[in-house]
Amino acid sequence: MKIFYTLFLLALLSSISHAFVNDFCVANLNGPDGPSGYECKAPNTVTVDDFVFSGFVAGNTSGIFNAAITPAFVSQLPGVNGLGLSVARLDLAKGGFVPLHSHTASSEILIMVKGEITAGFITPAAAYQKTLKPGDIMVFPQGLLHFQVNSGKGKATAYLAFSNPSPGAQLLDLLLFGNNLPSQLIAQTTLLDYAQVKKLKARFGGRG
Amino acid sequence: MKIFYTLFLLALLSSISHAFVNDFCVANLNGPDGPSGYECKAPNTVTVDDFVFSGFVAGNTSGIFNAAITPAFVSQLPGVNGLGLSVARLDLAKGGFVPLHSHTASSEILIMVKGEITAGFITPAAAYQKTLKPGDIMVFPQGLLHFQVNSGKGKATAYLAFSNPSPGAQLLDLLLFGNNLPSQLIAQTTLLDYAQVKKLKARFGGRG
Amino acid sequence: MKIFYTLFLLALLSSISHAFVNDFCVANLNGPDGPSGYECKAPNTVTVDDFVFSGFVAGNTSGIFNAAITPAFVSQLPGVNGLGLSVARLDLAKGGFVPLHSHTASSEILIMVKGEITAGFITPAAAYQKTLKPGDIMVFPQGLLHFQVNSGKGKATAYLAFSNPSPGAQLLDLLLFGNNLPSQLIAQTTLLDYAQVKKLKARFGGRG
Amino acid sequence: MKIFYTLFLLALLSSISHAFVNDFCVANLNGPDGPSGYECKAPNTVTVDDFVFSGFVAGNTSGIFNAAITPAFVSQLPGVNGLGLSVARLDLAKGGFVPLHSHTASSEILIMVKGEITAGFITPAAAYQKTLKPGDIMVFPQGLLHFQVNSGKGKATAYLAFSNPSPGAQLLDLLLFGNNLPSQLIAQTTLLDYAQVKKLKARFGGRG
Amino acid sequence: MKIFYTLFLLALLSSISHAFVNDFCVANLNGPDGPSGYECKAPNTVTVDDFVFSGFVAGNTSGIFNAAITPAFVSQLPGVNGLGLSVARLDLAKGGFVPLHSHTASSEILIMVKGEITAGFITPAAAYQKTLKPGDIMVFPQGLLHFQVNSGKGKATAYLAFSNPSPGAQLLDLLLFGNNLPSQLIAQTTLLDYAQVKKLKARFGGRG
Amino acid sequence: MKIFYTLFLLALLSSISHAFVNDFCVANLNGPDGPSGYECKAPNTVTVDDFVFSGFVAGNTSGIFNAAITPAFVSQLPGVNGLGLSVARLDLAKGGFVPLHSHTASSEILIMVKGEITAGFITPAAAYQKTLKPGDIMVFPQGLLHFQVNSGKGKATAYLAFSNPSPGAQLLDLLLFGNNLPSQLIAQTTLLDYAQVKKLKARFGGRG
Repeated sequence: MKIFYTLFLLALLSSISHAFVNDFCVANLNGPDGPSGYECKAPNTVTVDDFVFSGFVAGNTSGIFNAAITPAFVSQLPGVNGLGLSVARLDLAKGGFVPLHSHTASSEILIMVKGEITAGFITPAAAYQKTLKPGDIMVFPQGLLHFQVNSGKGKATAYLAFSNPSPGAQLLDLLLFGNNLPSQLIAQTTLLDYAQVKKLKARFGGRG
Repeated sequence: MKIFYTLFLLALLSSISHAFVNDFCVANLNGPDGPSGYECKAPNTVTVDDFVFSGFVAGNTSGIFNAAITPAFVSQLPGVNGLGLSVARLDLAKGGFVPLHSHTASSEILIMVKGEITAGFITPAAAYQKTLKPGDIMVFPQGLLHFQVNSGKGKATAYLAFSNPSPGAQLLDLLLFGNNLPSQLIAQTTLLDYAQVKKLKARFGGRG
Repeated sequence: MKIFYTLFLLALLSSISHAFVNDFCVANLNGPDGPSGYECKAPNTVTVDDFVFSGFVAGNTSGIFNAAITPAFVSQLPGVNGLGLSVARLDLAKGGFVPLHSHTASSEILIMVKGEITAGFITPAAAYQKTLKPGDIMVFPQGLLHFQVNSGKGKATAYLAFSNPSPGAQLLDLLLFGNNLPSQLIAQTTLLDYAQVKKLKARFGGRG
Repeated sequence: MKIFYTLFLLALLSSISHAFVNDFCVANLNGPDGPSGYECKAPNTVTVDDFVFSGFVAGNTSGIFNAAITPAFVSQLPGVNGLGLSVARLDLAKGGFVPLHSHTASSEILIMVKGEITAGFITPAAAYQKTLKPGDIMVFPQGLLHFQVNSGKGKATAYLAFSNPSPGAQLLDLLLFGNNLPSQLIAQTTLLDYAQVKKLKARFGGRG
Repeated sequence: MKIFYTLFLLALLSSISHAFVNDFCVANLNGPDGPSGYECKAPNTVTVDDFVFSGFVAGNTSGIFNAAITPAFVSQLPGVNGLGLSVARLDLAKGGFVPLHSHTASSEILIMVKGEITAGFITPAAAYQKTLKPGDIMVFPQGLLHFQVNSGKGKATAYLAFSNPSPGAQLLDLLLFGNNLPSQLIAQTTLLDYAQVKKLKARFGGRG
Repeated sequence: MKIFYTLFLLALLSSISHAFVNDFCVANLNGPDGPSGYECKAPNTVTVDDFVFSGFVAGNTSGIFNAAITPAFVSQLPGVNGLGLSVARLDLAKGGFVPLHSHTASSEILIMVKGEITAGFITPAAAYQKTLKPGDIMVFPQGLLHFQVNSGKGKATAYLAFSNPSPGAQLLDLLLFGNNLPSQLIAQTTLLDYAQVKKLKARFGGRG
């Protein structure tokens, strides 16, 4: 009896391709990507582990910014391919912060988990800043420069949600001082003092 | 003279790629797909038959639901690749019906052709139901659970239009009772009686 | 008991706006429209009739083209607002045809219902033409110039699906000969003979 | 000096509208919405509090499912309007669960915070299920039916990210048993026993 | 010191794929394309020349229309892949013009550089025409038939911007008279005289 | 005769709304905007001047950057509403430049018209820089920080095309030094020296 119904359902769906019975496109990370994401893995090779990431834990906050980002983007979680969504974990040691940065094609929501973070974003017209504690969330609209500073007395942790499966991160200092453009050009187009540029180029690895 | 103009036009367009002179992307069904659809077939291999499907006829309605769906999705009609559109034919024998189902990323319009169908869709706030005859059409918005029941005295036929070249079909019974999740888990998360779950799992081929 | 559960569910959803419990945006046809469609009607004023259109019947084919189009676009079927989908019915008397035309932001699928139609579309590289009978469907990709001619011995009927709730129709003759641009300008930019332009302007109501 | 530069910058930007200097569209919740979201608040009335929500705390889990959802959707957080992103908090008491449901136009990522949750989603081809603990995240692709069950020995908490500022929630039981469709019709289109339908209609407030 | 910071930054970003640190998708013109564009070149093979095109100069205007189009579409400028943008240069000798044409999935803005051009577009409801001189720009909305005529006493030059990296060009004469559809069919579906069709087919290389 | 055909065409189109016969959405700049743009002006109030902008001329380059931007965005050219396209003119006096900036939701193509400009954009992985002369164009992908410097011996002029009708401009100095965030916070999150921040705040009008 059971077999009868199963066969019947298969018959009902018989002229329907694999695209019909799967409603996701798990990234084939070994293949090329395109403007809308990676190619889809063959559905019969997809497992639940393509939709689960188990390394969403605190990163090492002992570096210069005392900050760690643990991403769960398409590279870590291939099931988000094409879905316009990803997340990350942010850990800040005491005094830690994420310097000014933006995401080229992604908005971001920060969910406070622990400690206290002062966060904000800047538009040409105004700056929007708030000190956040557990129970607070804050949204940073797409493409705007924003920062997060541990303003509390201990560690701080937050979760970040992004409207892009691979949101990128344009860290301002890395952009300005980590490249090989002539320091004079950077000074001119930022209006920073030449000495300031040279000092930070030395720190962020830029040449020129 | 004719050759002169032809050559001139080629010259006018001479630096322009094949992408310039073709405005479609017929699916290469042998290649991988991605979040926006299949890769394009080489334009010089495209024929009119990539845009025509000739099997759009009544399916066999002798099964349990006395229903047949004849799809013309990207698998049958590769010319719809990337166009956000496809169609299907629905035939219902007397007493036939399409059980509750949804399409994850597609709206649907039903065009009544013959007979009488009572159709509806359900939101958390309300159910919208109507008995339809030839001359009537009905739209089922994206992602909402809907059904179609032959409420007439003979056969019924309708055409379906979808806003997706590969609209998928989440047939509720197949989701609930065709899988291998534990029956206890299904009972818990549906609030159905355990015995009811077991009974329908037997019918739809689910184990567990 | 029933009341208990109902109240509970309301509580579960209590902080959730009306936007949460409705998953459609029925057009308020009395309001303004915008790039993505009309504003939404207040959900509590929506009825099933916003999703149903009952005038999907043969139009009058006694005019010059012996053709009639019965649209079910957002104006007739406000429930399609924002859904990227609409349909129309095409009736052709013997000898009837739809002259060359395009849709600016919509693809189209034609479903043959009755009779015989020879249809085709044209790109700069090639023309794609087919004679269609019941059981055949054909897709016309977005923006391409296409035509439908009754090539049979009697009436012909087809249903049309569009990937736009308000697909527009750029009827070539109406564009070329129904406006007030100087006939000389039309002749120049089409390379048609001036006399031909004047003749058709007289027919399609253009001045100049 | 400072004034000079400020004036200069204003001059540089002088012919530029308010749309130029603001890169967000905070929802005017008092106005109508449309297919792409709410109208924008006048930029000069926007404050940081449009981008912050401070009620992101545990809800009351003493109801039938022992579950609480605290949304931060466009209604609570108007700054997410048009950004394709929102979040919610899920609290499950011991034994609590979120019954099977889907979101019509949104994917979801679950971030485990505390306790243990067994979660899964179902496609016509397979079910994908996993038991999650802190450090795990799981993605549920758009439109698919999914569930979350507290499978641990105490409370469980998770954060949810959505790819839609107003993701809706199609709770299966509410759809099936909370409406006024005839019980016979529900039984037919679900294949559930009539008695089962009547029993659950009593529980979920449906009539008919 | 510098090395320390560089290493630190790499550590901060260490779990992040190449997709994270590149925010573009330069076309791999040797690979297949899909509905959203070409596959991305490997980021380490991208150079500044993928974003620069140096052949944006006047074309040869000695042909029948005395017109030349120099495109900078994805084929010439692979850096625009997936970005929804491209440009072209238009040169018209005295008396030159671009015949009526449309772009299937692109709007266009014309920037006058030199001389005088009379341009316009046509909808079923009205024609919109203007004589443009340097300092003027004009937009032609997506999919609408439009023309550009040198109405001055010397050469004319304009730049064109498109909302598509590969905007196509549906040149009306080439569509109507460059194909192999029977002249009788063209005459019928355009309402042009048969002799007119034959005359222009001879000119544009069409057969049939 | 002419009247007959005109009436016939009106009859053919008789059940079709105004949305059917207009394929654009000119911005009503007096109304509210939303996530996809402004509401549409009533079609019968649209004139050709909604699609033409006649102030596309050199701006005043006598200010601090010796730069002038003349935008033709939706505010100046309401016909681009909803079309994903706009343009601007850039004039640089000798020594002039556009400081580092980005556009949150727009790519940009620069067309060199006169003089010499050294332009570039920066990603976390590399900087892409080129000296451009007439005949050259360069694309700056969405959201990336970029600059344009007059590197020639005289004036320089370029036209800019954007993939957004209202592309915004995030001028880095204005963001960093034109706001009221505490200078200490800016110094911390940029790693700039406090004195440098204070110096530039004085110049760009920021307080704090």
